[in-house]
Amino acid sequence: MKFATLKINSKDGQLVLVSKDHSCFVEINDIASTLQFALDNWSTCQNLLETRYQKLNAGQLEATPFNPELCAAPLPRSWQWLDGSCFLNHGHLMQQAFHLDPIENAEIYPLVYQGAGDSFVGCQDNVVAASVDHGIDFEGEFGVITDNVPMGISADEALNKVRLVVMLNDISYRALGPREMKTGFGFVQAKGSTAFAPIAVTPDELGDDWNNGRVCLPLEVRRNGEWFGAPEGEKMHFGFHQLIAHIAKARALNAGTVIGSGTVSNTEPGKGQACISELRAKELIEHGAPHTDFLTIGEEITMQTINSDGISVFGDIKQTVTVENEHV
Amino acid sequence: MKFATLKINSKDGQLVLVSKDHSCFVEINDIASTLQFALDNWSTCQNLLETRYQKLNAGQLEATPFNPELCAAPLPRSWQWLDGSCFLNHGHLMQQAFHLDPIENAEIYPLVYQGAGDSFVGCQDNVVAASVDHGIDFEGEFGVITDNVPMGISADEALNKVRLVVMLNDISYRALGPREMKTGFGFVQAKGSTAFAPIAVTPDELGDDWNNGRVCLPLEVRRNGEWFGAPEGEKMHFGFHQLIAHIAKARALNAGTVIGSGTVSNTEPGKGQACISELRAKELIEHGAPHTDFLTIGEEITMQTINSDGISVFGDIKQTVTVENEHV
Repeated sequence: MKFATLKINSKDGQLVLVSKDHSCFVEINDIASTLQFALDNWSTCQNLLETRYQKLNAGQLEATPFNPELCAAPLPRSWQWLDGSCFLNHGHLMQQAFHLDPIENAEIYPLVYQGAGDSFVGCQDNVVAASVDHGIDFEGEFGVITDNVPMGISADEALNKVRLVVMLNDISYRALGPREMKTGFGFVQAKGSTAFAPIAVTPDELGDDWNNGRVCLPLEVRRNGEWFGAPEGEKMHFGFHQLIAHIAKARALNAGTVIGSGTVSNTEPGKGQACISELRAKELIEHGAPHTDFLTIGEEITMQTINSDGISVFGDIKQTVTVENEHV
Repeated sequence: MKFATLKINSKDGQLVLVSKDHSCFVEINDIASTLQFALDNWSTCQNLLETRYQKLNAGQLEATPFNPELCAAPLPRSWQWLDGSCFLNHGHLMQQAFHLDPIENAEIYPLVYQGAGDSFVGCQDNVVAASVDHGIDFEGEFGVITDNVPMGISADEALNKVRLVVMLNDISYRALGPREMKTGFGFVQAKGSTAFAPIAVTPDELGDDWNNGRVCLPLEVRRNGEWFGAPEGEKMHFGFHQLIAHIAKARALNAGTVIGSGTVSNTEPGKGQACISELRAKELIEHGAPHTDFLTIGEEITMQTINSDGISVFGDIKQTVTVENEHV
């Protein structure tokens, strides 16, 4: 199934079912008016939703043209948002460029920080930063939205707890991150509101492109229309199931927990990169100094994940950078 | 005003107004059935709530005896939970005991990590840990619940964004924390469900005990009935207003954001401590080895904040340690 959430006068939006080809949607208020409700009541909603989805795709329902511009994030806010750093190439480049000590056992224990899930934004919402001096950067990522997860779950069991797969842009303020990382307490100031592609899909919609808890497709990023990178999701060192098991080691997770992969990153040079800081690190390593700037006001960032049928699986992210105030 | 939330068949519970002397409560479903609703609609609810509260205290309403055993956390879940470490003595002791490098500029920038706000628990709910091997510890803290906070707010302005003051027990797994801190990504596995004292109070209820964004009262902790410490809240290095301004530097906060002080900690030896790890650090420094164990199954931890009138301002926390499974 494919879900989107329309912006309405409620922070949780209105959940709709989107057709397989993304051309149209139907309302499902009679089954589940929000994604959080659907996730909380999956066992009672699932069959009803599946039936509606089949009818929608068979052209048996009166449907409305789908317009991503009207979409909030599929889950506009989450009780828990955690973001990994599961493409180890990204960390290796950062360490090499900035002469940082490697993070111990990063290949054994997934790196993951707790983020703020109170204000996810839609695929065409502006990036609202406080200052261009904060080093505004994007991070193209895949993510999952979970079912209820019991404490101490195994990675194998956790694979069945992935309800939905998403694509997201983790806005990062690079001038604020290093100080926060050095404290050991993780990121607070260094992360903005995360943006989500409009369509959240059940894993079965990905077919073979969902394999071993990974989205095995390239995530293509453009900056002001120019190709910036298209690294492959299958190079994720940990699958999402392993990430879930790691997070749930000492606590249960509630349905609607959102977990990100970390910026998609490949070692192959031809793949480019899904964030500016990684390109800057490469420049620093190769030329002794970075020459690509972070984002400034008015710049546009787009992201999409195209499958072998030519479909933008999650719909596109297309955001413009704004700065709200400069009295910081 | 004094608020509590009763456990009902809804994760957000039922908000009630508690009398000034904590003897009884009245329902306020006609004004705000949950604390999140009240916070989201404070400007329209406030006068109605104040009037109801005055009548309750004047004995003009039919009220029900207040039983903290029936209470959830005042806000049973929050879209955003952040916890500081604003009593610098705690960090100094940890650094001395474990020969850690001091955290740079900790006296200028508040230490704060993003936590999981999806599953706060009530004052008499069990601590549910995954394993006694995780080093189960409590942390007695004060906290605040905010109004909507704009990005880039000043500390002075932030003082007016404190809607409610609370007391909490930040459950921490000391065997899991150091590895996570070393990654720089903050705590994920190392924190359990935070418990809250039953009563959240508006700052005016604290009178002079709320001063400069600090709760100027001792937070008394007992372990299995024995006095463990009663450190003073006024020794907080940063006030909550400064903590809010720090957190909101690059993003807005939504009403209902919960912010903790970090474990209350004083330098004076007679004050004891509000967590086990701090006592162990002192033992390590003085005797070369810690001799106080972390919590084990069946142990009871109580916390209260008594003012000069002899009132337990937030009601008491009284939790028993359990372990859910050992297959971790």
